[in-house]
Amino acid sequence: MTINNREELRKKIYTIVFESDTRKGRLFDLILLWVILLSIISVFLESVASFRERYLTAIQILEWLFTILFSLEYAVRIYSSKKPWTYIFSFYGLIDFISFIPNYLSLIFPGAQYLMVIRALRLLRVFRILKLSRFINEGNVLKNALKASVHKITVFILSVITLVTIIGTLMYIIEGEESGFTNIPIAIYWAIVTITTVGYGDISPQSPLGQLLASILMIVGYGIIAVPTGIVTVAIAKASEDSKEKCSFCSSIIQTEKANYCANCGKELNPKK
Amino acid sequence: MTINNREELRKKIYTIVFESDTRKGRLFDLILLWVILLSIISVFLESVASFRERYLTAIQILEWLFTILFSLEYAVRIYSSKKPWTYIFSFYGLIDFISFIPNYLSLIFPGAQYLMVIRALRLLRVFRILKLSRFINEGNVLKNALKASVHKITVFILSVITLVTIIGTLMYIIEGEESGFTNIPIAIYWAIVTITTVGYGDISPQSPLGQLLASILMIVGYGIIAVPTGIVTVAIAKASEDSKEKCSFCSSIIQTEKANYCANCGKELNPKK
Amino acid sequence: MTINNREELRKKIYTIVFESDTRKGRLFDLILLWVILLSIISVFLESVASFRERYLTAIQILEWLFTILFSLEYAVRIYSSKKPWTYIFSFYGLIDFISFIPNYLSLIFPGAQYLMVIRALRLLRVFRILKLSRFINEGNVLKNALKASVHKITVFILSVITLVTIIGTLMYIIEGEESGFTNIPIAIYWAIVTITTVGYGDISPQSPLGQLLASILMIVGYGIIAVPTGIVTVAIAKASEDSKEKCSFCSSIIQTEKANYCANCGKELNPKK
Amino acid sequence: MTINNREELRKKIYTIVFESDTRKGRLFDLILLWVILLSIISVFLESVASFRERYLTAIQILEWLFTILFSLEYAVRIYSSKKPWTYIFSFYGLIDFISFIPNYLSLIFPGAQYLMVIRALRLLRVFRILKLSRFINEGNVLKNALKASVHKITVFILSVITLVTIIGTLMYIIEGEESGFTNIPIAIYWAIVTITTVGYGDISPQSPLGQLLASILMIVGYGIIAVPTGIVTVAIAKASEDSKEKCSFCSSIIQTEKANYCANCGKELNPKK
Repeated sequence: MTINNREELRKKIYTIVFESDTRKGRLFDLILLWVILLSIISVFLESVASFRERYLTAIQILEWLFTILFSLEYAVRIYSSKKPWTYIFSFYGLIDFISFIPNYLSLIFPGAQYLMVIRALRLLRVFRILKLSRFINEGNVLKNALKASVHKITVFILSVITLVTIIGTLMYIIEGEESGFTNIPIAIYWAIVTITTVGYGDISPQSPLGQLLASILMIVGYGIIAVPTGIVTVAIAKASEDSKEKCSFCSSIIQTEKANYCANCGKELNPKK
Repeated sequence: MTINNREELRKKIYTIVFESDTRKGRLFDLILLWVILLSIISVFLESVASFRERYLTAIQILEWLFTILFSLEYAVRIYSSKKPWTYIFSFYGLIDFISFIPNYLSLIFPGAQYLMVIRALRLLRVFRILKLSRFINEGNVLKNALKASVHKITVFILSVITLVTIIGTLMYIIEGEESGFTNIPIAIYWAIVTITTVGYGDISPQSPLGQLLASILMIVGYGIIAVPTGIVTVAIAKASEDSKEKCSFCSSIIQTEKANYCANCGKELNPKK
Repeated sequence: MTINNREELRKKIYTIVFESDTRKGRLFDLILLWVILLSIISVFLESVASFRERYLTAIQILEWLFTILFSLEYAVRIYSSKKPWTYIFSFYGLIDFISFIPNYLSLIFPGAQYLMVIRALRLLRVFRILKLSRFINEGNVLKNALKASVHKITVFILSVITLVTIIGTLMYIIEGEESGFTNIPIAIYWAIVTITTVGYGDISPQSPLGQLLASILMIVGYGIIAVPTGIVTVAIAKASEDSKEKCSFCSSIIQTEKANYCANCGKELNPKK
Repeated sequence: MTINNREELRKKIYTIVFESDTRKGRLFDLILLWVILLSIISVFLESVASFRERYLTAIQILEWLFTILFSLEYAVRIYSSKKPWTYIFSFYGLIDFISFIPNYLSLIFPGAQYLMVIRALRLLRVFRILKLSRFINEGNVLKNALKASVHKITVFILSVITLVTIIGTLMYIIEGEESGFTNIPIAIYWAIVTITTVGYGDISPQSPLGQLLASILMIVGYGIIAVPTGIVTVAIAKASEDSKEKCSFCSSIIQTEKANYCANCGKELNPKK
């Protein structure tokens, strides 16, 4: 095998394992997704007591099989990359690594095998297969919307944390230990459960004063939940506006799909699509 | 009876059972809706123990009456259709079929009669009666909005599922069996109950670390609930914009109801309304 | 006292009890609001066991005092109205009537006095006092928004009711009586508690299949809650847009408060403000 | 030390403790934030029984240390201010005062030390450090949005309070004492818990009629939660629109960052940025 052949083989493997434009590449990704799904289900089943007791050996063999498979895949990916280190420290590279390493670790630390569930993150690869579709664009709209509202949301979350700290402490003073508000951190936990409208009911105020304060917190929380929604909605509206094609002269949005002239200023457009 | 007469009869029946533009057709649909409602209530009552014990025979007679009525109606619909197979495999055709078949099945498989509640779907027929009103248009705006945001919502739901899988597993490792987190699937169930802010409280974290993680999940879920709302709001805004009449020259929205000229470009409009 | 004087007195009383533009009229409304508030609090206190035992006589005297006061006020309102029947059958007239009648009824039917809490509706009078402020306008924006979205919300609520009926019945079949799903109506009640993300936890699925179905319902409900929000948001955006002053020529919104000319078409405006 | 030197020292201290533009000022604020955070955590830990028993002396010493530190800081702030009274009665001045005073009060009233948690409000100072960033602007957008919608939200909250009062009383009459609806205030508390979708489940309807009424309340609450969201979203959209740079001639928004001419009316802009 000459160096040229080797290089060619590397490239061929690369297009299969990293890209999904070719028929083979897409098939590889599809099989991989199913194997990932199966491996996650096997982790789930191991945690169910009745399954663990009956099929422990079968599950363990399966998990080692998946682990070896993923280890091999990881090796192939490193081999076929032009710049292996770039891959290793990329987002997907790190996920690929931590998706098989817990099983090796479980030989030393029992219980570590459950961390294999992190390989659920590998399922995000599904968006790669759908690369050619509208999903990337839609995902970008969401990402841009969240990025644009990160400052507003930080201000919002800091205000909420300050609020629950103060309300939680007040409830600790009002309700005391008998109602389950045994310390301030647990009272803050209750305030978060309440303001987010989750409301487990494992801890709830018993005294009239506590119930009054809780009522106020709920109605405030009712209004407050509107704020992140408002922020994100406006951001999504803006992001999906920005993702539309615009006239390069008057920057007005091109409404019609196949317009040759801008409907606003009449200048001729260079339709790229 | 000549063939012509038969054909005429078929057509006459068709306008009564399938359309609701004529007085008779509307009356038929109205009576049908009430019968459907009554038949659903009778299924409800059968499931209530105290009723079942006392009035079992009466309820069963009633249910068979409704079943025979719906069977007859189904036969008439098939008879009066020009293309029976198109009706049979249409959305409403299938619903009509599964709304009476469970009772026949219950002769073989006891308990199947509860599936008759699927006939609740027949109530969607109410929109047919209201055909002439604005409901169809409004329904279309909603449908288009949901259709337009299906990609964004898919991205969103896949991310949420990945998140609850990982958080659920972490909680299983942290909390363990004593707090009710007996296996990973149940821990994921808890994570979904929490992130959607339902919060039954049948399972809830007991350890400080678990409560900290739950608090983070809740605050994240608080922000996350904003995302589908934002997506749908923007889509509804766009869909209701699209449903407005537009100038065929400059594609700007016609604000005034009875405009003869476009307010933007001054071209004459052909008012259809 | 001549007829003229009587008529003058009637008018004078009318401006006090029905209007709130004059100093006396505003004072009357303000005192009335406090009396209403006190009377509601007295109904609350009567329901609290510890209060009822100790201060029963005092509370009853107070309630009869309020009842007689409201009866007198009602008589004065009828007397001073030009068209008494219009007042009696108006929204406020009916509320005024049912706010004192329960106490008389409680002489015959014990327990009816709690219905006096309906007088809480009289507190809506607060908006009358604030008549001159921006509240009316803001209230109208909300009212118009809700009115405009009533068709969309009807379609939405009918779909939700159909969904919870079917899911509730499925859960009744899956979970059975041991988990608290004792009959279909209660299972539908559970489905409503779940889809609205209230989640009391008094009834919750115990079997894995039931928990899977509940998870799906929750995630669907998560997306579904976005729909009414989207509908109302778009409607409020439109209603608050409509409430702005517009150019009578080109119907574009007048951005600047004290514009003399339309910023869009340049026509002179007739500034009313 | 001459008066001049003193004045210079005062100014120097002022720039350090009140401003965060200089390197020293920023360092001071950063250290302060960490000290505040640590002092809050120490209040939390004191409330946890197991900690209090073991490390009571250590925690108390720490708390007195923080209290003296904050007292000193307060003195320095007063000393370095040009107008001390303006500082003392400013928002931050009052917070600074109530963040150390509870510990002195706890010498007379035991338990008052928990009020020290109010110093969590001091964490809002974090926005001061971030002064130069976009946070102020984003915070203003949120503040303006909430200010603009305060009237609408008042109308909304008054309507909700009236609704929960009436529904709560009805539930008290329907359910009675056995289901936990022991008096009207507690029934109103339940109605608030339900309409805000918190749903603790500590009190929940048991009778079919009560569950029907609760179901209606939930579905209504489902629609109602959309209203504040809609209000705030529209307000945020407007506020973030208003915060954009506009053409001083035609008041249309300047889309491009570095535009020299208005895209709408063609007038030359005076780019400040």
